[in-house]
This record gives sequence, C-alpha cells and structure tokens, in this order.
Amino acid sequence: MITEALLRLTAKPKFARTALVEFAALEDASRTVNAILSAGIVPATLELMDETAIACIEEALHLGLPLDVEAILLVETDGADEASVLREIEAVAAICRASGARQVKVAKGEAERENLWKARRSVSPALARKAPNKLGEDITVPRSAIPEAVRRLKAISARYGLPIVIFGHAGDGNLHPNILFDKRDPEQWAKVEQMAAEEFALALELGGTLSGEHGVGMLKRPYMEQALGPVSLEVQKRIKAALDPVNILNPGKVFPD
Amino acid sequence: MITEALLRLTAKPKFARTALVEFAALEDASRTVNAILSAGIVPATLELMDETAIACIEEALHLGLPLDVEAILLVETDGADEASVLREIEAVAAICRASGARQVKVAKGEAERENLWKARRSVSPALARKAPNKLGEDITVPRSAIPEAVRRLKAISARYGLPIVIFGHAGDGNLHPNILFDKRDPEQWAKVEQMAAEEFALALELGGTLSGEHGVGMLKRPYMEQALGPVSLEVQKRIKAALDPVNILNPGKVFPD
Repeated sequence: MITEALLRLTAKPKFARTALVEFAALEDASRTVNAILSAGIVPATLELMDETAIACIEEALHLGLPLDVEAILLVETDGADEASVLREIEAVAAICRASGARQVKVAKGEAERENLWKARRSVSPALARKAPNKLGEDITVPRSAIPEAVRRLKAISARYGLPIVIFGHAGDGNLHPNILFDKRDPEQWAKVEQMAAEEFALALELGGTLSGEHGVGMLKRPYMEQALGPVSLEVQKRIKAALDPVNILNPGKVFPD
Repeated sequence: MITEALLRLTAKPKFARTALVEFAALEDASRTVNAILSAGIVPATLELMDETAIACIEEALHLGLPLDVEAILLVETDGADEASVLREIEAVAAICRASGARQVKVAKGEAERENLWKARRSVSPALARKAPNKLGEDITVPRSAIPEAVRRLKAISARYGLPIVIFGHAGDGNLHPNILFDKRDPEQWAKVEQMAAEEFALALELGGTLSGEHGVGMLKRPYMEQALGPVSLEVQKRIKAALDPVNILNPGKVFPD
C-alpha cells in the first residue's frame, strides 16, 4: 500500500494570455500547431475543436462561435513576466495568421480571457444536452496526422450514422472523439462498440496510441496486444507482477487474458 | 535487446542570456536559488560554484574571479523571444541583488556570455591540474539544505586533510563534491573511500539521495539499502528481474548482494 507521497511543486505562473483562432481549413490548424512548437514556443494550452464540436457548443450556448470554419484553436501562453507572456501570444498570433488563420482574437483582459475559455469549458455540458450518452475516447496520433485522423473519424461517424464530436489537446496529438448516442437503444450501443474499435484501429494505423491520458481500463484491454505486441505485453505483465505479486491491484484491468 | 529508440525532439531555444553572480555568503546564494524558482522563473542553468571551486579555477586560469566570496551562481535564461529572455535575466538579476548578491554581471553579447561560461567549463580541467586523481560524487539534497551540505562537506575535507571542491546544479539541489587526491598513495585512497561514505551519509541525513544524475554503479551499491530500505530494494530487484530474467544486463551493479 502507498501510504505517503512526496510531491514536488512548481510555482503557479503569474500571468496568462489567451487567443482563440479560427481556421477555415482543419489542415491549416494542424500545420499551425507544428509551426508554433517548431518556433520554440511551448504554450500552456493548445486546444483544438473541430466543426462538430463548435456546432455543438454554439447550439447549446449561443456564444457567437463561427459555424463556417473547420477548426478553432485555443492557445494560451503563461509565465512570470507579463510583457514576455504578451510578446509570446503575439508571436503565436503572427504564426497563426501566416499559417492561414481566418481570425485571431487575443483576449485583452481577464474578462475577455474567461470568455474565450468558455467555449472550451462548455464542450462537455453541450454534449450532454445533445444526446443521453457519449463515449469519449482518448486516441493520440503524431501531430502531423491530426487532419487524417479527423477525416477518418468523420468517415466513421457518417458510416454508422452517429455524431462524433472532436476536440482535444492538439499540442500532444491527443484527440477526444466523443460518440453521441442513446444507450437505451441496443442497436446504437452495438454500433458504438464497433465505432470505438475503428477509432482505436485508426489511431494505431496512423502511428499513434490507444490512450493519451485516460488509461486503458477494460474497454481498450482487447486492443492492447495489437497496440504493443506480445513481447512488450509480456514484459509489462511481469513488471505488474513484480509490484503486485498476489494480483490485488485492480485485477483484470489493462492486460488481455 | 533494444534495437530501436524513437526520440521526441524539442526546438532548440533561439536566445540565451547569462549572468554570473557573486555571493559573499553561501547561505545567500542558496536562498537566491529558491527565490528565483519561487518567482516562477525556471532558468535553463542554475549552477553553483563554492569558494574551493572558484580558487581552483582561478589558480589554473586567472580569469579574474573573486577569491573573497563564498559562492558564485551562473544563471542562464533562454527562449524563443529575445526581449523576453532579456527581461527574465533582468528579473533574475533583481532577485539576486535583493537576496544579498555582491555583484551581478549580465553578459551583454555572445562573447561576454562565452566568457562567463568559461569559469564553469574550466572546473574539470582545473581540477586535473591540481591533483593526479579526483573522485567526483553526485549527491543531491533539498535545495534549502545546500548550505548545510556544503558546511558538512568542508568539515569532512578538514577532518581528512584532502581538498573537496564543490560545484553543482543548484536548481536541482545536485552537488558534485570532488575529492582531490593521489591514488598512488594507498593511505589517501583509504581516506577517499571513507570520505565518500561520509558524503553519502550526509546526503541521506539531509533528506537527499545518493545520486542526482550519475547513477549507482558499484561505488554506491553498498549504500543502497540505507538509502531506500529493504522493501523498496526488493521491489526494484523484482522489476529488474522482470526486464532481465536471466540477469545479463549489467549484472552485479546497483543492488547490494
């Protein structure tokens, strides 16, 4: 049993500046993410929302988000020095404009910043209004493969006839496709299971992983061998056994039988 | 066998600014390190050299370093935006002055920067001129315990009559005490082994670790049980066995028999 943990704390940044950036083409948003990071800028936030996510939020909350763009990026820089943080968000804005952004809104004060964040924070509540259930996945792909991943997710959605809302942490290539459905309908639930399987398959095909931050659990367990191969799985099982020789720590999760 | 490794690269910072800071009292240098980090500034470099290290470099290279201070800090900030990097090193300089620095020299250009780095880079060559052998250790203590660690290292040096030169990565609490000696003298070698044992003991007493970055190997192997306790060691041995079931990966290192 772990009875004590020693944490190393870092100081909270004193200042933050936020930009909401609209892209007519998702491809440009994806290229922009790479351009920002390649310039040596590491924003605190680099969030992507695709057109399905934007439509969903706008329908629920009427924030005035554009319905004719393929993607929005929410970018935030932070640090200990106000002028430096401002300069950095301005550098981000310039890169966005040069990479095909249709509009860049940099928040002028805390109230405006709060307002830009509202869209991102509203995703989950907005989805809850839209359908009784959602299955939020956590696939991660190389950043350059984000447009291809989004295209394939949209194709899955079209093929099964259930909406997939896409948002995520673009700086990490971590996408959260959310399938919207009604679990009381057994046909829909069967579809959702197949759709999730296709999501996992596309992530692996594009050189990505099953999970960026949520972990494996039971749903992704059957895909672990495909994702990691038998040798890696065997080694990981042995490490688990080294830490948990009598298998009392969350048994039956993560590893396929 | 590991036959392939996939590396994630980050962009090299475009700009860097460097400051060399003199402290009459080591205690103030140590407090300054914490003050810088608490202000939310995370320098790329936060190097400490104590008076023995300064004397050693100065004797070898005549760089004009002060011989009447207890410590020098070398601090470097870096980033993608020149003005921001400059503002950050100026904030560092202000904190240093407020924390009792006697002098703060911020390099004005690349040539001056190179010059400030010369002192830090000269430590190892300077030590080689001073004695035939050195034993460089790698103890790490909580940052607030750096002055106490340095005091105890000096006491060890005085007790055994062999110099200990102290420098290290102060931002991580990682000190590199270097015992200078002549291995051809068996009496000196016997002393050095005892001195190293005392260095390890003081690191553990102050809540630190045996190694900050160099690893355990054979020299620190006998101290592993004292450092980690039998339970942690047993778990770590099991993890090693999980990864190396027939014990062919660097056998006999790290774990005490």
